[in-house]
Amino acid sequence: MTADYALLVDRVRSHQPLVHNITNYVVMNFTANALLAMGASPIMAHALEEMEDMVSLASALVVNIGTLSRPWIEAMKLAIATARRQQIPIVLDPVGAGATPLRTRTARELLELGTPMLVRGNASEICALANETVKTKGVDSTLASDQAIEAAQLLADQHNATVVISGKVDHIITEQSHVEVHNGSALMAQITGTGCAASALLGALAAVADPGDAAVATMLAMGIAGELADTQAQGPGTFVPHFLDALAALDGEQLSAQARIKINLA
Amino acid sequence: MTADYALLVDRVRSHQPLVHNITNYVVMNFTANALLAMGASPIMAHALEEMEDMVSLASALVVNIGTLSRPWIEAMKLAIATARRQQIPIVLDPVGAGATPLRTRTARELLELGTPMLVRGNASEICALANETVKTKGVDSTLASDQAIEAAQLLADQHNATVVISGKVDHIITEQSHVEVHNGSALMAQITGTGCAASALLGALAAVADPGDAAVATMLAMGIAGELADTQAQGPGTFVPHFLDALAALDGEQLSAQARIKINLA
Amino acid sequence: MTADYALLVDRVRSHQPLVHNITNYVVMNFTANALLAMGASPIMAHALEEMEDMVSLASALVVNIGTLSRPWIEAMKLAIATARRQQIPIVLDPVGAGATPLRTRTARELLELGTPMLVRGNASEICALANETVKTKGVDSTLASDQAIEAAQLLADQHNATVVISGKVDHIITEQSHVEVHNGSALMAQITGTGCAASALLGALAAVADPGDAAVATMLAMGIAGELADTQAQGPGTFVPHFLDALAALDGEQLSAQARIKINLA
Repeated sequence: MTADYALLVDRVRSHQPLVHNITNYVVMNFTANALLAMGASPIMAHALEEMEDMVSLASALVVNIGTLSRPWIEAMKLAIATARRQQIPIVLDPVGAGATPLRTRTARELLELGTPMLVRGNASEICALANETVKTKGVDSTLASDQAIEAAQLLADQHNATVVISGKVDHIITEQSHVEVHNGSALMAQITGTGCAASALLGALAAVADPGDAAVATMLAMGIAGELADTQAQGPGTFVPHFLDALAALDGEQLSAQARIKINLA
Repeated sequence: MTADYALLVDRVRSHQPLVHNITNYVVMNFTANALLAMGASPIMAHALEEMEDMVSLASALVVNIGTLSRPWIEAMKLAIATARRQQIPIVLDPVGAGATPLRTRTARELLELGTPMLVRGNASEICALANETVKTKGVDSTLASDQAIEAAQLLADQHNATVVISGKVDHIITEQSHVEVHNGSALMAQITGTGCAASALLGALAAVADPGDAAVATMLAMGIAGELADTQAQGPGTFVPHFLDALAALDGEQLSAQARIKINLA
Repeated sequence: MTADYALLVDRVRSHQPLVHNITNYVVMNFTANALLAMGASPIMAHALEEMEDMVSLASALVVNIGTLSRPWIEAMKLAIATARRQQIPIVLDPVGAGATPLRTRTARELLELGTPMLVRGNASEICALANETVKTKGVDSTLASDQAIEAAQLLADQHNATVVISGKVDHIITEQSHVEVHNGSALMAQITGTGCAASALLGALAAVADPGDAAVATMLAMGIAGELADTQAQGPGTFVPHFLDALAALDGEQLSAQARIKINLA
């Protein structure tokens, strides 16, 4: 099973998919470099006037609501409509869903428009997306990833979605499956943009594979690159360049050798 | 005295305050990572529609005018009004005040709306904020930090503000006190965002302490992390990751041991 | 000949020109740090309301269309008009020209308004700027740099422009000359923002020298810093900080010693 995920990493490098990102200002540089390190080709563009033209060139669309504003919401909607017409995979990163009504509402609207989607968030965000009554505080998750499994299953069923809950353990949930990825480093939670980078890579992997497999391969690549960087880093600052180095050097063989996954049978 | 500042660094790490930032595009990533390294939890959001909701979650607000635009000025004003209602500390970073009328005028308006505030700038910016007739050129300071002491005292008196003048020597000025911090590295002036990161950390510290103490503790943490990074770095590029590592590893004991402060009696 | 380029690097460090940048969100931090490492002083501002005031302070203007939007296009046009009035050099980076009609059209409009300009792009972008019928795909170049030489010569002749085609070999083309720079590292294409940083440095160099000489000196500085960083880096992640270190340490003597240029006679 793990060997298949390994193939996907090699496939991204040979296909070099164009991934269109509408993402937040904070992580744009890190995200673009993560995509390049993975062998994909990032595009970052936001103007409504060129959205259809730009998405038409892409092999995947990644929409991240980290720094929302009215004109960007319009651009996100047009991008999603175009991606659906193009039948390319769409990834939603509902940053801060649950923290403010604008975010919760926007994330849900985008999910409706883009169904079926790949969704990646922390436990609080996934709960907020699934259920208005879930309590959250702030933009960082106050829940462990396994506390959002039920919410993720609900989203998977209702929207035919592939849902990734990031955390110490990552859960990848589809209508039919539930896989856990146990790779990773504690330093990944001490820098900004780890989750956003995972969502961007999810776009790259989904451009060359089935959504569920793409999601597992993505979280394995992130977690294993994180583990390798952890051995080189002296702290969260030096972790970032070493993480990108590890991602750039990662191949399928290494991924197979280090993968720690658990497949939960329904 | 230094021991008290040391306690504050430890207190930030245990309280993990949410710090809401409206800051410039250039430094968002570095600023978010600096806050995480300090143990705080950064939020970066700019939409008018969610400003009141977001600031209501925060323990401090940081407003930085580095990349101003009309819609952001409105968001800054609403954020400040909300922060005042919430009675959380407000930090103003008047980037480029004195360089253009828009910046000088906006910085002054925000200061009026937010009084009392914590203000951090270079000498030119502090002079411009205090006095229309002070001559400045460009966005980098053309003055040494001690040339702005009188201006800072004026701001402190008129606005009940805590004012930090950054430079080779940092001056922390309140209505009652004037403390100098002599820590730091020359490399800090050779990268973008050092000042902006100081303003963000000022928010984190002010969330857990009296403004004057928070300001001294912030500049000590910045300066000492800078000195530690300087011993590891080969230049301004490698300085950045080592600075974040040093900030993440800094504890109160180390801060006490390395602090070089001078307290000026009135 | 190379010795003259060497002098220019030293001249930037002694003059510390203010370079005004209207550039894309993805690379702002890296670009600002590259300018600082080169000894220049970066300004990044985008509001129409302060554009004339800000450009009036600058010694060069750099306009990069990487993340275009309607309000920014207006700001770019006003910035160019102001720069022409101030008679300071203007650099255009036509990111993604050829990828969407908005980009191609905007890049051409800016070129018309700013003539004579310095233009830096990859081969696809230079072709798109010169000729509507050239075929391109995406924002990364699908052509080798020497496939755009004719297009660059056309732009140089029609617009009295200095044109840089970046690639494995860099071509610097004016009405009278064609110089090739053979320095560089393969890692430069594996990170985001290398080209954007070159455009920004071009502004810094053009502030202190003739456009053609500035362009050759810029590409030598970029390429040689890249080679030095390559020997230190373990991958694209660690390349970035080492590149900035190398740029900060680069002096004229080192540039002369390592330059690999070829001058093509007409």
